[in-house]
Amino acid sequence: MGIHAYFQSLTDLERITRCPGKFKFQEHSVSAHSWKVVQYAKTLADIEESHGAAVDWKKLYEITSSHDYGEIFIGDIKTPVKHYSLELRAMLQRVEEGMVDHFIDEQIPEEFKPIFRRQLREGKDDSTEGKILEVADKLDQVYEAYAELIRGNTEKEFVVMYRSALIKIKSIQLHCVDYFLQHILPDMVSEGSRSPIDIATITNEALKS
Amino acid sequence: MGIHAYFQSLTDLERITRCPGKFKFQEHSVSAHSWKVVQYAKTLADIEESHGAAVDWKKLYEITSSHDYGEIFIGDIKTPVKHYSLELRAMLQRVEEGMVDHFIDEQIPEEFKPIFRRQLREGKDDSTEGKILEVADKLDQVYEAYAELIRGNTEKEFVVMYRSALIKIKSIQLHCVDYFLQHILPDMVSEGSRSPIDIATITNEALKS
Amino acid sequence: MGIHAYFQSLTDLERITRCPGKFKFQEHSVSAHSWKVVQYAKTLADIEESHGAAVDWKKLYEITSSHDYGEIFIGDIKTPVKHYSLELRAMLQRVEEGMVDHFIDEQIPEEFKPIFRRQLREGKDDSTEGKILEVADKLDQVYEAYAELIRGNTEKEFVVMYRSALIKIKSIQLHCVDYFLQHILPDMVSEGSRSPIDIATITNEALKS
Amino acid sequence: MGIHAYFQSLTDLERITRCPGKFKFQEHSVSAHSWKVVQYAKTLADIEESHGAAVDWKKLYEITSSHDYGEIFIGDIKTPVKHYSLELRAMLQRVEEGMVDHFIDEQIPEEFKPIFRRQLREGKDDSTEGKILEVADKLDQVYEAYAELIRGNTEKEFVVMYRSALIKIKSIQLHCVDYFLQHILPDMVSEGSRSPIDIATITNEALKS
Amino acid sequence: MGIHAYFQSLTDLERITRCPGKFKFQEHSVSAHSWKVVQYAKTLADIEESHGAAVDWKKLYEITSSHDYGEIFIGDIKTPVKHYSLELRAMLQRVEEGMVDHFIDEQIPEEFKPIFRRQLREGKDDSTEGKILEVADKLDQVYEAYAELIRGNTEKEFVVMYRSALIKIKSIQLHCVDYFLQHILPDMVSEGSRSPIDIATITNEALKS
Amino acid sequence: MGIHAYFQSLTDLERITRCPGKFKFQEHSVSAHSWKVVQYAKTLADIEESHGAAVDWKKLYEITSSHDYGEIFIGDIKTPVKHYSLELRAMLQRVEEGMVDHFIDEQIPEEFKPIFRRQLREGKDDSTEGKILEVADKLDQVYEAYAELIRGNTEKEFVVMYRSALIKIKSIQLHCVDYFLQHILPDMVSEGSRSPIDIATITNEALKS
Repeated sequence: MGIHAYFQSLTDLERITRCPGKFKFQEHSVSAHSWKVVQYAKTLADIEESHGAAVDWKKLYEITSSHDYGEIFIGDIKTPVKHYSLELRAMLQRVEEGMVDHFIDEQIPEEFKPIFRRQLREGKDDSTEGKILEVADKLDQVYEAYAELIRGNTEKEFVVMYRSALIKIKSIQLHCVDYFLQHILPDMVSEGSRSPIDIATITNEALKS
Repeated sequence: MGIHAYFQSLTDLERITRCPGKFKFQEHSVSAHSWKVVQYAKTLADIEESHGAAVDWKKLYEITSSHDYGEIFIGDIKTPVKHYSLELRAMLQRVEEGMVDHFIDEQIPEEFKPIFRRQLREGKDDSTEGKILEVADKLDQVYEAYAELIRGNTEKEFVVMYRSALIKIKSIQLHCVDYFLQHILPDMVSEGSRSPIDIATITNEALKS
Repeated sequence: MGIHAYFQSLTDLERITRCPGKFKFQEHSVSAHSWKVVQYAKTLADIEESHGAAVDWKKLYEITSSHDYGEIFIGDIKTPVKHYSLELRAMLQRVEEGMVDHFIDEQIPEEFKPIFRRQLREGKDDSTEGKILEVADKLDQVYEAYAELIRGNTEKEFVVMYRSALIKIKSIQLHCVDYFLQHILPDMVSEGSRSPIDIATITNEALKS
Repeated sequence: MGIHAYFQSLTDLERITRCPGKFKFQEHSVSAHSWKVVQYAKTLADIEESHGAAVDWKKLYEITSSHDYGEIFIGDIKTPVKHYSLELRAMLQRVEEGMVDHFIDEQIPEEFKPIFRRQLREGKDDSTEGKILEVADKLDQVYEAYAELIRGNTEKEFVVMYRSALIKIKSIQLHCVDYFLQHILPDMVSEGSRSPIDIATITNEALKS
Repeated sequence: MGIHAYFQSLTDLERITRCPGKFKFQEHSVSAHSWKVVQYAKTLADIEESHGAAVDWKKLYEITSSHDYGEIFIGDIKTPVKHYSLELRAMLQRVEEGMVDHFIDEQIPEEFKPIFRRQLREGKDDSTEGKILEVADKLDQVYEAYAELIRGNTEKEFVVMYRSALIKIKSIQLHCVDYFLQHILPDMVSEGSRSPIDIATITNEALKS
Repeated sequence: MGIHAYFQSLTDLERITRCPGKFKFQEHSVSAHSWKVVQYAKTLADIEESHGAAVDWKKLYEITSSHDYGEIFIGDIKTPVKHYSLELRAMLQRVEEGMVDHFIDEQIPEEFKPIFRRQLREGKDDSTEGKILEVADKLDQVYEAYAELIRGNTEKEFVVMYRSALIKIKSIQLHCVDYFLQHILPDMVSEGSRSPIDIATITNEALKS
């Protein structure tokens, strides 16, 4: 009971595998993903600041580091399930929030409850920080799928993951998205020419769509 | 397109881990679990027959072997999520059925569609076969939790799993359940005395509740 | 002592790896293999029935689900060893049967001994069910080898496995074998064109041989 | 060349195992460790703020998230090696910094070089943020060792790790350290009474030393 | 064709797991086992020499390093199978030798064939070197079983393995066996007092039998 | 205390992974590597003897089997670190030797201390045996890198590993090096033509440099 229960629970995310089921050359845990999102978001926010935008670093820290904590309670539900209907998606979101609230009520000392409620909320809102989190989360989807494609993984699911993440990123209005499209993605595509899969064409089709 | 897509999809269940997140001395895939359920159900049905009950072996074969196939589409959603509300549970069931139907529509040749619709339905109905499946499924939960407890796993979740599965089994009216309670469970408890965890007391409390 | 010893032993097959030694992109346990054989056999029997053949589903259930149980006692002996000489093969078969008999004598209650003796016998006889089991077992060898070839595994052993399984399947007189050759295998070969290995040529050579 | 090289390199830390060599019930990657340090540090800083201390969240974000990035270049050198002599420790630190500098010179675009130099520096200085990082890093050592001890791991190394991390934490002047010693550690010790190892005594001896 | 085929085949033994099936806290490959046998044998031979015995180091090197090479061809057949009957054991030995001979005939250049035939023969003869190999091989069985027992593995198989290896070692007339029984085994037993399993009693019973 | 501590420590090398960090299709432990070095060295020495050179088999046995034992104390420090400066390399060597000496002082009985000091010394001197060890160690680097390249691993690090090991081998004056370059390497290159990576060109460039 108390912060110990919270600290100890973190290790559970080391044992939840992302994208279960499909064949992958490399598996990723939710905790490893979460750390990469923290790292991407930091650099994305640096780019954003360098273009004059204001970044609330405390908020960015809170929402990026905790963004998948709720998976401790519901697991890594497959993306098609989450997107099956708006009604189901809303209900799953309520369940996750309910379970997080219940955990906070049961385990977190009174004086820290407001802090934990704020930190463990869904962070992907329309603020600059919320949008950076959305880009960073999708960026890891791009990198995870890319790592499979460059090694010749023929599962179609990774083309779908790569495409849909690129399309989502492209739709977000941020300076760091422009930077990604102009300076980072071309390096990926260029390196991807070593792959037996035609990453350049997949990328171009996603950018045009 | 066709039966090939179905046959090939089976291997996905080798890569979905049961009960993700909690520390386990041994991990189990959904396919390994499915095979053990098939085996338990066979012996449970033998016991049932030896007491004069009629068993439809074709139906039992169909429902036990396929009972978790739908997890290919939705993953191994954590039990507390499934039981969060009757409304959510019903909705997740509908989603899983919808995705299975969609798979059959897309992939299975016309002449086999009725067969696949029957086989991939939820099998846990009130028939003898449906009840045997329910017992066999919970029996594997008992064995998976027991294997952790006997090795001294201190995670409370496995006590909960062990208890709740026993309580469910006890509530089902079948000759094989009586046999399990009188002849199989005592052997487990007796062997469990080697464990640092008091399996006998946990078992007795579950049976009384 | 009793059914508990049998139920508990099933998990041992989750820890025996098929085809040990050679490099594989994906490992398979004997229990995962056994489950896939159960699933293939079900659909193969459905095809057989749809062509008017009679299927004894209880027998099919028994022989497919238990067909590799004996590996608990002898392990996954390499195929070349089994086929080294007819004399050795017969002797290994006798050893396996002797160890299964010994297990039944020691562990299984008197009233279930005849049932277990029937179920744990070698099932690949000349009956329709025995032939379906043989096809299903070889079909998993085809799928396991195919999954390596499509990902570009250059070990020659997987070409040998794929070829020899196809040749064996082709030699069995069943409606479901015709269906496999006409409707399932072409889908595999077509999808296999994404592989750096020429699966079409390997397949055609096997079918002609 | 560019930010892509940096983003892609992050996944290397998913493949570096902490504390290699000794038997562990659970392995941890450097990236999973890094994420837990980010999470602990956030709550430790919240506690610090609630006692009136000022926290520079941007600095805390930068130094906690990147604190082990240098291990990409030098690996997880065993702690006894690092502490063998002050001279060796200083030399290894210089090598790591030299390799990080070289990476920044080669890969990072001119406009981001100053940012990366600041972020990838050694963060454990005497500032509040530097001290929070030191506590968070040692806290994960406590939790990793505790998780082995509670499962009965008899390797003496984990007692040493647990003890030395507690002693280091105790020596740091922060409000959050007082909170840890008074409210978190007692919960750990109390839960640890389920272990076959006497965690309470080990803890008390560490606190007295 | 040639030495390359031999060198490349060595890596296969990294993928063959010893003692497949039973639950283990730690798995061992045949190659890791082989290396430990080489190391034990070296120290055992040092002890033997220090008591005035002559050791042929070239022979010892050849027979210890290659003693399980044949498992590449036949896999790790379960010990009970090997000991099922003298007839089967002799036949399996002939098969293994036949496959090794065939490999040498096919792959090894003419000038090295006699060397490989000598090195890949069964080395456990009545010479000092053959007896040292026997002790070293059994010593690794002792250590593998001991490592499970000290961590509380309740599988009875490891008690059987530990006991039978000790009994075999005890029966061999070598100075190094006396040294092992007087100076090494007491240290194991003393350290084993930390285990929940009574290693001292198991050891004493084995030594008396 | 005593030889038991030494024998038990050997298993630690089964848990230290070679070349941590970079993506590999197959991981190798230090103990598996050590065994392969022992095997290569044996055949290399056979070749050397067949050309009339004298080989001290006891010395060769001692230095090859123990050549990476020191990694128990310092871990698998990344090669670029070791080669960062001559000063650092010398210091790390001194640290490793100091830790090995300390282990011998603490654990090894008086009468065996001289033997262990000789065996656990750095073996790569200018003697025939020292040079054979150097070739065997680099040969395993060639085979580990080759196994990645032939499966299409696009990480540049494996090209670097393969090249640098070949260049080092080529520079050593031994009959077995000539044999390797004339009879073994051509077989590797020829088999490597199945790889999507141009192993022949990489090899030729290394041999010319």
